[in-house]
Amino acid sequence: MTSDLERQLDFLREIDRLKSIVRLSPLIDRSRRENSAEHSWHLALYALVLAEHAAGNVDVLRVVKMLLIHDIVEIDAGDVPFHLPATHVGQAERERLAAERIFGLLPEPQASEFHDLWREFEVAESDDARFAKALDRFQPMLHNAATDGGTWVECGVTLEQITTRCRPPIEGGAPALWEAAARMAGEHYRNRPDEA
Amino acid sequence: MTSDLERQLDFLREIDRLKSIVRLSPLIDRSRRENSAEHSWHLALYALVLAEHAAGNVDVLRVVKMLLIHDIVEIDAGDVPFHLPATHVGQAERERLAAERIFGLLPEPQASEFHDLWREFEVAESDDARFAKALDRFQPMLHNAATDGGTWVECGVTLEQITTRCRPPIEGGAPALWEAAARMAGEHYRNRPDEA
Ligand SMILES: [Ca+2]
Repeated sequence: MTSDLERQLDFLREIDRLKSIVRLSPLIDRSRRENSAEHSWHLALYALVLAEHAAGNVDVLRVVKMLLIHDIVEIDAGDVPFHLPATHVGQAERERLAAERIFGLLPEPQASEFHDLWREFEVAESDDARFAKALDRFQPMLHNAATDGGTWVECGVTLEQITTRCRPPIEGGAPALWEAAARMAGEHYRNRPDEA
Repeated sequence: MTSDLERQLDFLREIDRLKSIVRLSPLIDRSRRENSAEHSWHLALYALVLAEHAAGNVDVLRVVKMLLIHDIVEIDAGDVPFHLPATHVGQAERERLAAERIFGLLPEPQASEFHDLWREFEVAESDDARFAKALDRFQPMLHNAATDGGTWVECGVTLEQITTRCRPPIEGGAPALWEAAARMAGEHYRNRPDEA
């Protein structure tokens, strides 16, 4: 059977693998690292809870959809830690191929709809995508602040590097969240001046 | 600071604990059991992908919201396996208290909105909630069928018990999905007639 429903179920079975893609970020209780499926769940909740702080006029359903699918390409391409830029080489092309294969499991017009939403998130030019991207950058900052530095400490990044890398995407999509994030990061580095 | 934003961030930190609530269901690759956060992510994707199969007229954003928050009460109340009815005793009351505490971390009107959505899901009388509930029953059937029986085998349930427990909620919310689920379960038990 290759009905539309069977293709949809194939896709839903395939994306189960996102639960095995492990990120560098720790859970807040530090019991283990976060995987990309539960990270995507958490981000969708961020969007629902924090929508009022979006810079532009956002369509919450589109933002939530983007966040639910934004990491699915990692099933083929793997996760590249944000604060380890050396790992980013070639990643865009790996993700492009992954998007073609995985979203292509769906029947049309869903395949194109998901593929387009993923590209919109990546480019981050629309209001919806800029807010989604801001949340994707903000959530790890909250986790790092709540875990004595998390990947900031693990990757040895400075407060200046955090500001350079995170301020534009977060402030661009949700100014109030950048204020909160900057305060949390500032507090961490004030308590650990040797790392700043 | 106890601003609305700070309360929202407290809630988002608190629900990180859902990633440590482990369900009986295996991942499809059987490497480990599924946790309730990644399960909720997966279900939200089921809603996006399978919305056309809903019995009623559904608002996809409301369905996705319900599925994203439906298990948050397990942070306090724990997960009770669907096919182990003995564990269900007292669970409704534990979940009621959990909902009050956890959704109560949010500022109003969000606290009430989330709380109401969770209750609507539990009662499963609206079209949105019936579809959401159908997906919550359907996804484990797909996993069990893909893992040589999964919790069907682990809990020693018969095909008749599956039909009694799963047909009404799945067929009521998404008839085509019950057809697919019945076919998958039927196939499993045909290959293992000693368990039927
Ligand atoms: Ca991400």
